[in-house]
Amino acid sequence: METLYDNPEFFQKYSQMYRSQQGLAGAGEWSALQPLLPDFTGKRVLDLGCGYGWHCGYAAANGATQVLGVDNSQKMLQVAQEKNPAPQIQYRCASIQELQFPHESFDMVFSSLAIHYLPDYPGLVKQVKDWLVPGGDFVFSVEHPIFTAQGPQDWVYGPEGEILYFPVDNYFYQGQREAVFLGERMTKYHRTLTTYLDTLLQNGFRLRRVVEPQPPASMMDLPGMKDEMRRPMMLLVAAVKE
Amino acid sequence: METLYDNPEFFQKYSQMYRSQQGLAGAGEWSALQPLLPDFTGKRVLDLGCGYGWHCGYAAANGATQVLGVDNSQKMLQVAQEKNPAPQIQYRCASIQELQFPHESFDMVFSSLAIHYLPDYPGLVKQVKDWLVPGGDFVFSVEHPIFTAQGPQDWVYGPEGEILYFPVDNYFYQGQREAVFLGERMTKYHRTLTTYLDTLLQNGFRLRRVVEPQPPASMMDLPGMKDEMRRPMMLLVAAVKE
Repeated sequence: METLYDNPEFFQKYSQMYRSQQGLAGAGEWSALQPLLPDFTGKRVLDLGCGYGWHCGYAAANGATQVLGVDNSQKMLQVAQEKNPAPQIQYRCASIQELQFPHESFDMVFSSLAIHYLPDYPGLVKQVKDWLVPGGDFVFSVEHPIFTAQGPQDWVYGPEGEILYFPVDNYFYQGQREAVFLGERMTKYHRTLTTYLDTLLQNGFRLRRVVEPQPPASMMDLPGMKDEMRRPMMLLVAAVKE
Repeated sequence: METLYDNPEFFQKYSQMYRSQQGLAGAGEWSALQPLLPDFTGKRVLDLGCGYGWHCGYAAANGATQVLGVDNSQKMLQVAQEKNPAPQIQYRCASIQELQFPHESFDMVFSSLAIHYLPDYPGLVKQVKDWLVPGGDFVFSVEHPIFTAQGPQDWVYGPEGEILYFPVDNYFYQGQREAVFLGERMTKYHRTLTTYLDTLLQNGFRLRRVVEPQPPASMMDLPGMKDEMRRPMMLLVAAVKE
């Protein structure tokens, strides 16, 4: 499967992003996400859409005994091997939707900003449920339903180019959206908050935390960061298989 | 405490609303809310902001043994007494924030579209936790954080008066908002989704369901109802005290 992340031009731009260069410390949501993660000691961890492998490295450094990072971009995984190698970590180039694992083969499933690229969320929830042991953790971040609803993912601007507000539209019409990210068109999937949360609740997961990250005080002076107070961009969910 | 619902002009307009005349069947969210309600048999129920008492009547008709409907509008409670009387139901004129009950005195606490009028949500959650028996249900509807974020609660319109989209702004700046409802200014409180849900999770509640109601097919032909597909207006939450 072709992936935009293997496109050299896009990949180059992605590599210049603050979060790509700084790792976890450069990700605005990390300070909100870190407290949602379970103790990794002795855990078998699956990272869906691992990218540069920052979270795989974090899991390994914090006691995980086996970490499998999956991404559909070979280029991303090459960087992951360089930046986040560890004997416990294995990287695999594969499409998330095609993954198959034995029943109860992981203690934790993690995913950072990848699930909104997948067309079938209820299908994923059922798979993760099958792959996790009882009591296992499913922690993920996605783009917020408010951010994905309309499609273009951009503010509405006034005559002077100033931000007026963020537009929401077609909220209950779930499905494909064409957004622009780093100058490239990409397909994402809009889902309601109901779909993200209630699907978990109705499929044997218990919600442990639901958090919309705000910019940390330490990053408030980065360009555009104050505007992030004006609408939610991400949703963090920590769930447990019952 | 003065309440807008006791203002004769506002009260008159409120009484003309489809949902005021039709009761539960006239409320767009009822078909989504009803499945979230627990079995009422033998339950002691508290309804915070009971208005015309439709939900009190429903609880009584479905087996609740004691129902206390609280509202701060004497006029609303007069109508409740007429429209939804039952020997098990007691109506009390009081401000929700001033209520005091013995520890574990209710099996269920319910609230329909009232909590966004209260300034202190975490305080309410702690109170409800205290009033409920272990295993007791807390089910409520509120205006959706997307709907309350900016303040005016109105669409952005194009040159022909057509709806363009719904504006979101100041999402992470929680607190007071001045909205217009039935031509009258009223104060509401905007809270993030994180505040609504994570406060429950961090205060000994388990989430059972989280639902954003869509207009039911049977009401899609009512004026403006199709536009309700374009942004979420309400959030329904069913939680259980652990």
